[in-house]
Amino acid sequence: MKQNEEIFSWESWVTIPTNSDFSLQNLPYCIFSTPNNEVKKIGVGIGEYVIDLNQMQQLNAFDTFNLSENFFLKDYLNDFIGLGKQITNAIREKIMIALKKENGTENNILFHHQKSILLPQKNLKFHLPVKIGDYTDFYSSREHATNVGTMFRDPNNALLPNWLHLPVAYHGRASSIVVSGTDIIRPYGQTKAADAEKPSFHATKLLDFELEMGFIIGKNTKLGENITTAEAENHIFGMVLFNDWSARDIQAWEYVPLGPFLAKNFASAMSPWVVVMEALEYFKVETPAQSEVLDYLKFEGKKSFDIQLEVFIKPQNSEEKLVCKSNHKYLYWNISQQLAHHTINGCNMNIGDLCASGTISGSTPDSFGSMLELTWRGSKPILMHDNTERKFINDFDTVIMRGFCEKNGHRVGFGEVNNFVLPAK
Amino acid sequence: MKQNEEIFSWESWVTIPTNSDFSLQNLPYCIFSTPNNEVKKIGVGIGEYVIDLNQMQQLNAFDTFNLSENFFLKDYLNDFIGLGKQITNAIREKIMIALKKENGTENNILFHHQKSILLPQKNLKFHLPVKIGDYTDFYSSREHATNVGTMFRDPNNALLPNWLHLPVAYHGRASSIVVSGTDIIRPYGQTKAADAEKPSFHATKLLDFELEMGFIIGKNTKLGENITTAEAENHIFGMVLFNDWSARDIQAWEYVPLGPFLAKNFASAMSPWVVVMEALEYFKVETPAQSEVLDYLKFEGKKSFDIQLEVFIKPQNSEEKLVCKSNHKYLYWNISQQLAHHTINGCNMNIGDLCASGTISGSTPDSFGSMLELTWRGSKPILMHDNTERKFINDFDTVIMRGFCEKNGHRVGFGEVNNFVLPAK
Repeated sequence: MKQNEEIFSWESWVTIPTNSDFSLQNLPYCIFSTPNNEVKKIGVGIGEYVIDLNQMQQLNAFDTFNLSENFFLKDYLNDFIGLGKQITNAIREKIMIALKKENGTENNILFHHQKSILLPQKNLKFHLPVKIGDYTDFYSSREHATNVGTMFRDPNNALLPNWLHLPVAYHGRASSIVVSGTDIIRPYGQTKAADAEKPSFHATKLLDFELEMGFIIGKNTKLGENITTAEAENHIFGMVLFNDWSARDIQAWEYVPLGPFLAKNFASAMSPWVVVMEALEYFKVETPAQSEVLDYLKFEGKKSFDIQLEVFIKPQNSEEKLVCKSNHKYLYWNISQQLAHHTINGCNMNIGDLCASGTISGSTPDSFGSMLELTWRGSKPILMHDNTERKFINDFDTVIMRGFCEKNGHRVGFGEVNNFVLPAK
Repeated sequence: MKQNEEIFSWESWVTIPTNSDFSLQNLPYCIFSTPNNEVKKIGVGIGEYVIDLNQMQQLNAFDTFNLSENFFLKDYLNDFIGLGKQITNAIREKIMIALKKENGTENNILFHHQKSILLPQKNLKFHLPVKIGDYTDFYSSREHATNVGTMFRDPNNALLPNWLHLPVAYHGRASSIVVSGTDIIRPYGQTKAADAEKPSFHATKLLDFELEMGFIIGKNTKLGENITTAEAENHIFGMVLFNDWSARDIQAWEYVPLGPFLAKNFASAMSPWVVVMEALEYFKVETPAQSEVLDYLKFEGKKSFDIQLEVFIKPQNSEEKLVCKSNHKYLYWNISQQLAHHTINGCNMNIGDLCASGTISGSTPDSFGSMLELTWRGSKPILMHDNTERKFINDFDTVIMRGFCEKNGHRVGFGEVNNFVLPAK
């Protein structure tokens, strides 16, 4: 099923508020549980509801798919993703058709049993949607790499020599990736001031967010196999919002020569919703112009996505302040190039693996994707609505990231990733 | 059960060849399968045999432990490790006592049923022993870091400023870690010669090994918890031999500023045997003298291990050539410091996570743990027994690493990790 113009003209019998991320054309997946039951289940977002897929299966709505009993009672989406796109897309199509306005009739299982199948999101608990085997973080925003290179190295040679030739990336920690809503504890660590003789030990003073998105691998490959740019999207199940929490003072001291470690692995946060690639098809755009690349990084057609991104800081007793507006389409390297590069040496991929984009900054100062860049190392603090200033993130702040596609009045969104910051223990 | 002097005086009714790694005092764990059955099982090495723990359970040898049915039919050791040291050590003690010479009697289940329980290692297939969630690679050999810094940076400031203050580390790829015996495919990648205008794409010309050891996490911790140097060994199940396969030309071009990526994640290899910490206790030694460190990195007592390490290269139609003799005790940072550092920011650990040491080089040129160092970037080739020279690793070579402790005539060894190198696809 292609997300073509026709589908975007469909309406649903479910009431979908204006500006809802969870339109009929989206149907993102999540893992949820209900207040009185710890069992985790696979759900699909629609408007202000989650569709309980287990309930649908019990009512025989999926009998044509030969799924095992209680298939949707799962801690993670991995087994569902493992069914393959042919089946997962057919299930999604079945749900989409059942939600169409003209199918709001009593002989439609979903409509008839809507009281037991459609659960209000506000009553539910959301969990990390995938079991992440390996987590890779790219560094694919030219503006971000340029900003960092300008601040910490040489403004005249801000990009390192390899940057325009390959999508730079490094491996991150999978165990400390948490779902939106999880509190972040300010980490301790070693830092060294430039003028200090010795390092010192304290809670980070420069806690920061990084506005990122990630894609979830949808197919296993074997060691020695590689994935071409043409094939890449078939190997990707969907995308998520991602906050790569960072401690800048720890990072500056530890990161040579092998990259960031404790400055990142204390926590990263993911949206509970995985938006499938098929829902994003309609919002594809051209990738920014590139210098010449080696053959395995060449690609044809539209491989970038127009996904509007926003970051807000909410001080404890104040309103949210919008501090950044960016867009996934600003990324210099598209996700097909990222995956082609990652596997060109035969590195194997597993279902549920996460590849994040790196900080997504635009070209204007209000589009930078981290406090490091927005306040230019703290030299330009940002005023909150309660008149306090932020150079970096304070204890008891909440950082909220939102993302959505919008075109011709149609919206497909990612919900949000938000985290409240607790003081160091 | 402490591995005290008394235990090292015990002998077994099983014939154990002189210089066997798998003495009565070792009893390392593995995952194996038999030629006619794909089911994977947990085994214990003794002499030239593997003890089939499932067979022992079926014969009621472990009835006192309340294990679930078919507990030892497992793809990985993780569930076994998850029983906790109190139980896994009690199981190991029971096996050790059953193997004692004076218990070689017919009322001993293991002795009586030895034909079905003791399986010759040469008939078995060995598998990756643990499901690795996250893999971290340290960089803890001062000699290695100094050699690399001398070659690629400044001989007069070979160590970077942070090196003596913290155990530098980075995250690696877990999906591409394979067991000994798996063929390694020479990877393709981007490289750029210093005098070239543009990067080029080809199979690596500088394939290298890195002689390492790794430790396996034995206890889950939660985000926000940290592990002290005093507690660290209680959080470690055991150790393995590890070859961190590397492509030096890919590495040199890609690694700034975020560390090695495709130069490493095409494959790393692990011994099939996990030697538990309790078997290594007897071989503990002092850690090399250190500069002053921050409090959380201080430690008391013997925290290093006298483990002799060897690397051999075997050209296709020739004998093994010993190219390196090193020792785990040369590491500047001990494993307790590594784990304390890794968790000081609250990073959580899971059972089965792997922390590798980084290349273990000694102070003499014949103790360097990589071809990069042994041949000093290819400037001092090594002569094989068939009179061919090696600057790096050739197609159809086999690289073999071995490791063992030896003290007062007693030996506890790790077997080997060996890989045959296939040409690029």
